Amino acid sequence: MESAIPQHLEALRTRHKRVPDDYQPPYPSFVARYKPAVSRVVMAYFGVQYRGEVPLAALTEIAGLLASEGGPSHWDRARYVDQAGYATIVTVAYWDDVARFDVWFAAAREAWTGKAREGIGSFIEVLRPTVARHETLFSSPDRPEGVAVIADGMSGEVQEHAYWGGMRDRIPLSQTDAMAPGGAPGLVRDGARLRVKPHDNLCLIRSGQDWSDTEASERKLYLDDVEPVLREGMDFLRDDGLAIGCYANRYMQVLAADGTVSEKSYGQSWWKSLAALERWAESHPTHVRIFGAAMKYLSTLGPAAKLRLYHEVTVAAADEQFFEYRNCHAKTGMLAAVETIGA
Amino acid sequence: MESAIPQHLEALRTRHKRVPDDYQPPYPSFVARYKPAVSRVVMAYFGVQYRGEVPLAALTEIAGLLASEGGPSHWDRARYVDQAGYATIVTVAYWDDVARFDVWFAAAREAWTGKAREGIGSFIEVLRPTVARHETLFSSPDRPEGVAVIADGMSGEVQEHAYWGGMRDRIPLSQTDAMAPGGAPGLVRDGARLRVKPHDNLCLIRSGQDWSDTEASERKLYLDDVEPVLREGMDFLRDDGLAIGCYANRYMQVLAADGTVSEKSYGQSWWKSLAALERWAESHPTHVRIFGAAMKYLSTLGPAAKLRLYHEVTVAAADEQFFEYRNCHAKTGMLAAVETIGA
Repeated sequence: MESAIPQHLEALRTRHKRVPDDYQPPYPSFVARYKPAVSRVVMAYFGVQYRGEVPLAALTEIAGLLASEGGPSHWDRARYVDQAGYATIVTVAYWDDVARFDVWFAAAREAWTGKAREGIGSFIEVLRPTVARHETLFSSPDRPEGVAVIADGMSGEVQEHAYWGGMRDRIPLSQTDAMAPGGAPGLVRDGARLRVKPHDNLCLIRSGQDWSDTEASERKLYLDDVEPVLREGMDFLRDDGLAIGCYANRYMQVLAADGTVSEKSYGQSWWKSLAALERWAESHPTHVRIFGAAMKYLSTLGPAAKLRLYHEVTVAAADEQFFEYRNCHAKTGMLAAVETIGA
Repeated sequence: MESAIPQHLEALRTRHKRVPDDYQPPYPSFVARYKPAVSRVVMAYFGVQYRGEVPLAALTEIAGLLASEGGPSHWDRARYVDQAGYATIVTVAYWDDVARFDVWFAAAREAWTGKAREGIGSFIEVLRPTVARHETLFSSPDRPEGVAVIADGMSGEVQEHAYWGGMRDRIPLSQTDAMAPGGAPGLVRDGARLRVKPHDNLCLIRSGQDWSDTEASERKLYLDDVEPVLREGMDFLRDDGLAIGCYANRYMQVLAADGTVSEKSYGQSWWKSLAALERWAESHPTHVRIFGAAMKYLSTLGPAAKLRLYHEVTVAAADEQFFEYRNCHAKTGMLAAVETIGA
């Protein structure tokens, strides 16, 4: 049993973790481990918003940018339909070298949001947190997803999970900081580009499901009993999340290399604070139902479960965030957090 | 909105509460307020264990003791059948003056466990915590139960509830102390009387339900959808709680003055630690189901719900505890926490 907080990020605590030192989680979980030399990671969401035909040219364009010098160590792609009925394909890329990203990004940004595309919106959402502001969790250690793909590897079994508050306790900064949100999001107009200046301690979660290994009865149980409840919660956050501090939520279907829908999904959401995310997860009826369904599923199957679950959570400082939208509707991503009409 | 921690028990924190200062609970709850002069309360459980006919003589005897000089400000009585098939009637009495209790108790104890009763077991379980080691919670402020009956009154709406960790945050000692358990329970034989010497920071919860005001569809919903799930969780704790730190659990039916079963119940359990109780409540499938059922019930009915819920929780220092059993089977109450066979 090891701590989710890597040794080199251990700090003299001014804040306690939520469980006693002898706490034993009831089942194993794992976290991504970066090389100690990695001080920051970058997670960049490049979105294309459209109606009708898939904008293949734009997708080819972003793939080309990602393949160019300085591009990410790993990227993946996923699709969803937003609350306004627009299809959105998001290409998510990860770096563990922020200097490399910065050089690459200057040109890539201009290419992606610097020009008009007929009938197509484009956006960029980037976090570049210090590793102390970030955590991951995996139900099994042998198939990294998202940012964990660029990590050095996986931990052994960690202690800080399977209780409410584990997410916070896995973030190294929680040892000394409440990570309270500071300020309110603002809008910056730069010609056709709209940038959202968010606020200190904005929170991002990507929470994924992979049922590709499930068979027969397990698959049926996931698709019939768990997925619909998950979808309902995701829809709630998408449509009504703002009142509880969720600026935006996307329930994404991961795309395979050939563009077809795979048997993986993830929810990705922007939150006013880690505390707001905690409250929803712990006590909102929609997530209580998700938790109940997942619990029933996992207790039915036990260690034989082939469903894979993971998440990554970041609480970003104000200067670690970048949000830019071009030709997107007013409720796209973090635009939903600011007033754009009539401005 | 006020803090559950009364002003005169506010301390310079070395431990944070689990929610930010601007946290707003989604529905109102209330706590009992004692006069600031009350430094300790006493909660004393006098049990009679039997098979077959109700031992009226013993019940009359304890009622007489409670009515004598120095007796409690309030008592109530409830019944259950334990895991070994014994019926048990527990008379619970409350004092807010520990000196008064001490004088009364010396004689009452001798009368209750100091003599043999044919075919009947008797026991005494007492906590006398400082008020800093104790909290209550009520869904409505107009019908106190249990220890709250002896309080000065009810608070206004308090902040620290409706999130996991609220129970801990309402206990004043949590401002400065993790309340970790210390030591292991031991057995002391004193002739026919068995005393359990427990350990520092043992935890007691009494968690009650009152459906006497519910009507028609609400009553049906409670009795059909909530109560069976609650009972299942209570049975789990009674039969299999030890492995997760629950020494003993009793799911009690409150008795009216005439000895008939009323429309009130409570679960009462002894725990190795507050942390063990927190873990069960937050993540054990049996309580997740109770929470889900209660959540669904309350969200269906909204503020119109007539069901009343309350609880009281104490984390007692070792010298604030007293457990004594006479002619009871080996798994009665805190005896279940120690080895009595062959000793």
